[in-house]
Amino acid sequence: MKFTINREEFLKGLQTAGHAISPKSSAPVLMQFKLDLTPRGLEIVASNNEISIWTLVPMNNGTNETIRNASFGSTLLNAYILTEIVRKIGSKEITVEVIDNTIAKIDDGKTAFKLNCISADQYPDIELAENAEAFELKCTDLIRLVEQTSFAALTKETRPILTGINLKADGGKLTATATDSARLSRKTVEVDPTLKFGCNIPSKVLVDLTHMLEGYDVVRVSPNKDKMIFAFGTTLYSSCLIGGDYPIASQIIPNTFNYYLEINADEFIRSVERVSILNVDRAPVVKLSMSEDSVEVSSRSDQMGSGNERLGTFQYTGERLEIAFNSQFVLDAVKAVRGEDVLLSFIGEMKPFVVKNPKDDSIIELVTPMRTR
Amino acid sequence: MKFTINREEFLKGLQTAGHAISPKSSAPVLMQFKLDLTPRGLEIVASNNEISIWTLVPMNNGTNETIRNASFGSTLLNAYILTEIVRKIGSKEITVEVIDNTIAKIDDGKTAFKLNCISADQYPDIELAENAEAFELKCTDLIRLVEQTSFAALTKETRPILTGINLKADGGKLTATATDSARLSRKTVEVDPTLKFGCNIPSKVLVDLTHMLEGYDVVRVSPNKDKMIFAFGTTLYSSCLIGGDYPIASQIIPNTFNYYLEINADEFIRSVERVSILNVDRAPVVKLSMSEDSVEVSSRSDQMGSGNERLGTFQYTGERLEIAFNSQFVLDAVKAVRGEDVLLSFIGEMKPFVVKNPKDDSIIELVTPMRTR
Repeated sequence: MKFTINREEFLKGLQTAGHAISPKSSAPVLMQFKLDLTPRGLEIVASNNEISIWTLVPMNNGTNETIRNASFGSTLLNAYILTEIVRKIGSKEITVEVIDNTIAKIDDGKTAFKLNCISADQYPDIELAENAEAFELKCTDLIRLVEQTSFAALTKETRPILTGINLKADGGKLTATATDSARLSRKTVEVDPTLKFGCNIPSKVLVDLTHMLEGYDVVRVSPNKDKMIFAFGTTLYSSCLIGGDYPIASQIIPNTFNYYLEINADEFIRSVERVSILNVDRAPVVKLSMSEDSVEVSSRSDQMGSGNERLGTFQYTGERLEIAFNSQFVLDAVKAVRGEDVLLSFIGEMKPFVVKNPKDDSIIELVTPMRTR
Repeated sequence: MKFTINREEFLKGLQTAGHAISPKSSAPVLMQFKLDLTPRGLEIVASNNEISIWTLVPMNNGTNETIRNASFGSTLLNAYILTEIVRKIGSKEITVEVIDNTIAKIDDGKTAFKLNCISADQYPDIELAENAEAFELKCTDLIRLVEQTSFAALTKETRPILTGINLKADGGKLTATATDSARLSRKTVEVDPTLKFGCNIPSKVLVDLTHMLEGYDVVRVSPNKDKMIFAFGTTLYSSCLIGGDYPIASQIIPNTFNYYLEINADEFIRSVERVSILNVDRAPVVKLSMSEDSVEVSSRSDQMGSGNERLGTFQYTGERLEIAFNSQFVLDAVKAVRGEDVLLSFIGEMKPFVVKNPKDDSIIELVTPMRTR
């Protein structure tokens, strides 16, 4: 294998594939990029236990030649070292030449590296292809689904199914749900009514993927039995799925309420943040005390003292109610619904309550209250 | 004690004193600010094992009243909680009132906190006053002395004296020296010829202090037997000294050399950084191979491979020489001397060598070579 390649395009390809290089990967072969020079261009593959990425640096970028002097072949090269070399080299073009399947010469005419490389047949088979059931999603829709729900997924591996985001398409709606069992976040976007599928994808994978989708219009999604393949630009991104039955959100979210508080979101966020200052030693518990005349947030710490704040303008319907909650969960929920005003709907002191944007029915947040002492 | 204070000025004072609050402080009383309201204004004191800070928020800022409704007194308040409250509160003014020496009410008319506080007489005596031997330094001079040497100080506590920067004033020169015993950095500025003193101050303390000096013209320095007091604006900053004899730099730095390499600093930095990429598993060793015809930097890793780069324009005087070094030490040294060109002067393969800016005699860097395999 030998080729001379535009440094910037090469670096973009390596950085794209680099999302699948995990510093904690157990198998040394997975610390390598697989490089394949074919008539299409330079194909770069990387993989870890959760995701695999295939990306192509095409031979030409418009009328500009990206790769020249191509002699086809393949090799494995240390991902970190190769990326750093291509990042730090000073010239516009780099020549890569593999000799005897053991040494890769990387040279820009000024700096010359001889890297130990591994024969490409040592790399595991990575199946990465779109399939017949592929459908298209707007990137902005997928980004919104993930951004507005991922924070509610479980971060510890105690219940693997809850570390994922549940995606479910049915009846013209695609719904993302995430829950750590103390709170739940659900966001819906409209899709083609014929679309029907359901799967659980690791939340941190979807967050990583959506960062890569910035700047693209459309992502094609191919569901498989044990993985989901996302295609955008000249890249294929495959995520593992999490097996098991996801809790059915529609049965958890209540529909009828006894108390309603509508309030300016920014003002509420700042008030809750201020009274939370005292919670330095434990879960940040804030109490909301509501009546038709006054709404107050407060917190108390045996060691530090207490703080309280009356909210200015609000609209409250219902009897007098006091409810305590993890303030971080409520702050996350109020920020996720992205409204100028926010509507909190309660059933009672110890029942989960709902946070919504009164002007946007596509997102709903559920928070379980905490017991105060 | 009771007072109403401008929030921004209060926050500035707390942030200044906060430099002496150490999250690892062993004594709970040192997690508190001591607040003293006196006719001068609000005095704030904080202290840890290495430094103490006294700062004053004066009663007035020009013609603007900063503190009003003052009733003198003192108390201790948790530094972190108080700073966060003053940072996050929404109004321009805050009222603080201490009741029965046990509760401090903090109120801006909207948010009300009741903090547990401690009687001020529980706080240790902190002596912070300038003395008759005080002298003035330009802040830019002290900042330069610290910035251009501190990186060479030892970061581990294995030899405490080497974690400090040695400051020595004599014959119209103030010299800062730092060394971790494998490299040494020395910078000199001109001062009043009558000035004569010497001390060792923890490097990380001086780095912190110089960050606080940005924006001030002059700092007054009062040497004491066991501490050094720095006065700027309405703040006194006291640092402990490190006892013991500092290695005498002038005896370590060689004067006569056999080989000289002069080279563009930026080009040299980028070349060394590029060939250092391969050193992922161990100390970053780079070899410099010099003759009158060619200068080359190279590195080698059994696992990864090798890299080398010929430098473009250079001026070399001497026989053929190969010398290996910790590339990070040489990069630090070349950056510290801040020249467009850099001059490296060698005695021989295994002798410490000198890095200088050929146009600036005020700074000198010494690096010990490494043995190659």
